[in-house]
Amino acid sequence: MTLYLERGFEETTVAEIAELAGLTERTFFRHFSDKREVLFAGAGALQELMVSAVRAAPASLSPFDVVARAVVAAGDAMGPGQERALLRQRVIDANDDLKERELIKLAALGRALAHALIERGVDDPVASLAAEAGIAVFRVAFERWVRGPADADLSDVIDSSIATLSVITQAREPGKRQDHG
Amino acid sequence: MTLYLERGFEETTVAEIAELAGLTERTFFRHFSDKREVLFAGAGALQELMVSAVRAAPASLSPFDVVARAVVAAGDAMGPGQERALLRQRVIDANDDLKERELIKLAALGRALAHALIERGVDDPVASLAAEAGIAVFRVAFERWVRGPADADLSDVIDSSIATLSVITQAREPGKRQDHG
Repeated sequence: MTLYLERGFEETTVAEIAELAGLTERTFFRHFSDKREVLFAGAGALQELMVSAVRAAPASLSPFDVVARAVVAAGDAMGPGQERALLRQRVIDANDDLKERELIKLAALGRALAHALIERGVDDPVASLAAEAGIAVFRVAFERWVRGPADADLSDVIDSSIATLSVITQAREPGKRQDHG
Repeated sequence: MTLYLERGFEETTVAEIAELAGLTERTFFRHFSDKREVLFAGAGALQELMVSAVRAAPASLSPFDVVARAVVAAGDAMGPGQERALLRQRVIDANDDLKERELIKLAALGRALAHALIERGVDDPVASLAAEAGIAVFRVAFERWVRGPADADLSDVIDSSIATLSVITQAREPGKRQDHG
């Protein structure tokens, strides 16, 4: 991680990263398809955890509350470790390829959550909207947490972001629907 | 566009695309930094239109309603033309590079909308959440429209998606905040 920051991601070799991780280059490639994947090593596990949370949620919950639980579960699993998360984010933000890869992982996560909701019997577009709203909360909350006060809890930031989203989407323009209907 | 679909994007040369568009290769590159950009030629104009809609919205509107207006304005500008939009989407979906570029344009659009809200005096995280919720609606509504009935109006699909998001984020789990507070 430190190597990436000091010299930039492109200039850090696989051999160096492997050495840092205590692996041979061959073992490294057995675990990661390329050096960029190291930074997203946790993405698969996070997606599994969130999909499991959707599956395990009580049937009585609304689709958005199901997604909210999954996002809070991700927050619980990711925190603490804000300092490391910020380092990782700086490496990603400094490199266009990595930023793209992050967006792809988030898009895949959104689709996986929507799919898990559909498996619970939620129809589209509710499933997709609830999933995408969950990803929106996750992105905004993560960004706030990673750049916020050092002792903040990611789950708390997620929880308050969910509550905020709920409030702001309620405050609709009076008569709006009539204007377009 | 047809060339892309018949042979795949990577196999279509700039000379061929330029010829199809009635341009010399040189003129082509004066307008587009590379051949992929052709497919996103409208993205800059769409972002400007949406940011202008945010700026022009009455001060009395809530942040989410301001974003909703911008998304509806985008829908008005994009429709009709569903068939062409579906062709374009198929070209993008068949190519990882293009999918990445689409995600990058959407992420930039989200940041631009959040920034325009902040300029109106909206604080974060409300600005970012409202903007990201707007992008979520835009993505889901566009996907529904492009693959839906041929005579559907994009603005109507956007309008109903906004209303659905508003309803589903209201139906919160009773006592949820206490569980985590």
